[in-house]
This record gives sequence, structure tokens and C-alpha cells, in this order.
Amino acid sequence: MREKFTQSDIQAMEKRKRTNLINSLSGYKSANLLGSVNNEGQTNLALMSSVFHVGANPALVGLLIRPHSVPRHSLENLIEQQCFTLNVVTESIYRQAHQSTARYPREQSEFEAVHLDVEFSDVINAPYVADSPVKTGLSVVETQTLSVNDCVLVIGEIVEISLDKALIANDGHLDIASANTVAVTGLDEYHLGQSLGRLPYPKPE
Amino acid sequence: MREKFTQSDIQAMEKRKRTNLINSLSGYKSANLLGSVNNEGQTNLALMSSVFHVGANPALVGLLIRPHSVPRHSLENLIEQQCFTLNVVTESIYRQAHQSTARYPREQSEFEAVHLDVEFSDVINAPYVADSPVKTGLSVVETQTLSVNDCVLVIGEIVEISLDKALIANDGHLDIASANTVAVTGLDEYHLGQSLGRLPYPKPE
Repeated sequence: MREKFTQSDIQAMEKRKRTNLINSLSGYKSANLLGSVNNEGQTNLALMSSVFHVGANPALVGLLIRPHSVPRHSLENLIEQQCFTLNVVTESIYRQAHQSTARYPREQSEFEAVHLDVEFSDVINAPYVADSPVKTGLSVVETQTLSVNDCVLVIGEIVEISLDKALIANDGHLDIASANTVAVTGLDEYHLGQSLGRLPYPKPE
Repeated sequence: MREKFTQSDIQAMEKRKRTNLINSLSGYKSANLLGSVNNEGQTNLALMSSVFHVGANPALVGLLIRPHSVPRHSLENLIEQQCFTLNVVTESIYRQAHQSTARYPREQSEFEAVHLDVEFSDVINAPYVADSPVKTGLSVVETQTLSVNDCVLVIGEIVEISLDKALIANDGHLDIASANTVAVTGLDEYHLGQSLGRLPYPKPE
């Protein structure tokens, strides 16, 4: 049985239901913890589900920060320092990652609040999550406020990668599932991945 | 054991290895088929792994189209028609979805080439994938070329949703995993999701 919603159905929907539905529509989302620090050395951690690939050469990553959501401290920090980290979330830390989205006061580091250890970088002034198996350090290339709803699009260039050696294949592909990496759907459901394998490069028959 | 890569390691890496690695870094990506049509009624289908949530009210979705990749026909079509569809990819169609990224000639519809049935919308001039359990129809709100690498950022507003009624919870959340929806990692690995459950709304302790 199919259920259909028109644009006016969506607009008339109760707010919480609309938020859950619209956040669920596109499917699985990557779960990454964004690490940053302010000028006073106060670290900050924020869970991001909108990280996307922009390009491999130069190595660019994009993410969207919501205007009224918790990671505003992250946004201020990454603009101040012009750098940040992304740390892939696994089964062993996803509850802490989810908890990091609570509205902690500015003077409290989410690293301490949710008991995740900091690992500092030699290259950039931003903290990694020690327990993440895939850590990326980025310098800010561009930030841009979207006119449609004041979200901020951040583009970062990858300047450092630190990963578990066991995950990387000879051709550079990472076996993310074997690290028990999680994906998010909607606002609050987490998933492990069960690999269906890799497919060959497609050519017209 | 950890492996580290500096910015110059990344730049010096063999092209294919760099492409695989950088595409793998952020974790799981949603797999959506973008449906579009041109002024002559020729349908087009393209697999997108960069769809991200932009906002719930208005209901906005973003995606990035690579400058030199196959979906240029999709980009031309969605600019022409100012609309497109997104169709969540499941286990039963992921091989066809992957095959749709082959470089078919412009005059051949990927729907026909990979044997996926078209379902037309009453609301917008864009084709759905009949076999997808979660279909979203969007009108184009904004297209913008990123100065960093000529990727095109497309923002769409959701004007129609069609989904399997069994997937939607009372609070609007979709049980994506039960529909055998797949996620992508890197360029070519596909995964089913195994739910770890939903977590409660987080509050500071």
C-alpha cells in the first residue's frame, strides 16, 4: 500500500512528524563527529549527518551546518581557526556521539561531557576523536550561507588522514563496515552496514 | 596499526587510489536514483550519492553534481524542467542503479538500458523509478556552481512524496532498513543496514 503526500500535506503536517519524515527521505546518512577548538583552547564536538564528497583532487569535502542547531559553536570555531576534523562514528561510540548533540553550555566541552578522548593533530589546530578509526583533518576553503534557509555550506580541503591500516585496500578503498561504522537514518536511528560487496566499473553493454 | 597521509602524500598518490580513498573517508552515503526528462520527453536516470538534508520547513534537499561525471544530462534536464525525482535504491535494484552510471549515449534512456520501469508523476514533469519504495518529487529552488571545482550544488523543494505505507511510523520516521535500502561506500561498495534502534532525544545530564 502506498501513501502519498502533496506539498500542502507536508506544510500542514504536525512539526515533529514533518521533521522526522523529511529527515528520513534520502536514506542512510554518514555519521561524523566534527572536532573544533576556539581561540581560548576550548574544544567542541558536534555530530554531523550531512557530510558529502566534493572532489578527490584537490581532496574536498562539504557539509551543511543548520542555522539554529547546536553546532553553532563548531561553526564559529571553524571560521576562527579555519580548520576542523571529521571522525567517523562506530558502534562503540555512537551513543556518545548522539549524546553530544544535547545543548551543552558553551563553556563545557562535549569531549568531556560524553567522555570521548581528544587526540591533537600535528598539522592543524583542531581535536580528533581518539577512538575513531577514520580521522580526517581539514582546512576551510569556503563558507557560504544559503539564501534558501540560512544554512551554512562549508567546504574543507583534506590536509591530514589517519586511519586503521587494516581498513585500506591496495586500491585505496576503505572497508568501512569491518570497522563497525554506523549510518544514521532520520534524526535518531543508527545502523551497522552489512556489505553486499563491490561492483565492477560499469560500462554500456 | 595506524596509517597517516599528509596533504603532499594525498597529492602524490596514484589517481585511482586517491579517488577511492577520498570517496571512502566520510563513511556511508545514501544511494538515490535521480529521474529527469528533457524537452523531447527523453527520460534520464543517474545514481547520486551526495543527497543531503537541508531543511524540513520548507522541505529542502541538496545534492552535488560533479562537473565531468555522467549525470550532466540530468543537470541539463533539471535546469530545463526545473524539477526532478529522487528514488531510494534497494537491494533488488542496486545492480541496475550501479549500471546506470555507465556512459550511455544521450539518446538512450538509462531506464531502458538497465530495465527499470518508469512511473510518471501527476504533479511534476519528471519520472519516478516504479520499484523504489520511497520516491520524492522536487522542484528546483536554486542551482549554484561551486568556485572550488565547478561542481553544481542543486537545492530542491519537496513537492510530492510517495512511499510504502508500512515504512512510516506514527511520528513520521521511516524504517528504511526494513525496505532493504542500500548505502554506498567509496565508489562501488553497497551495504544493507542492520538497525541498532532509535535513541531518545539527547539532553545534558
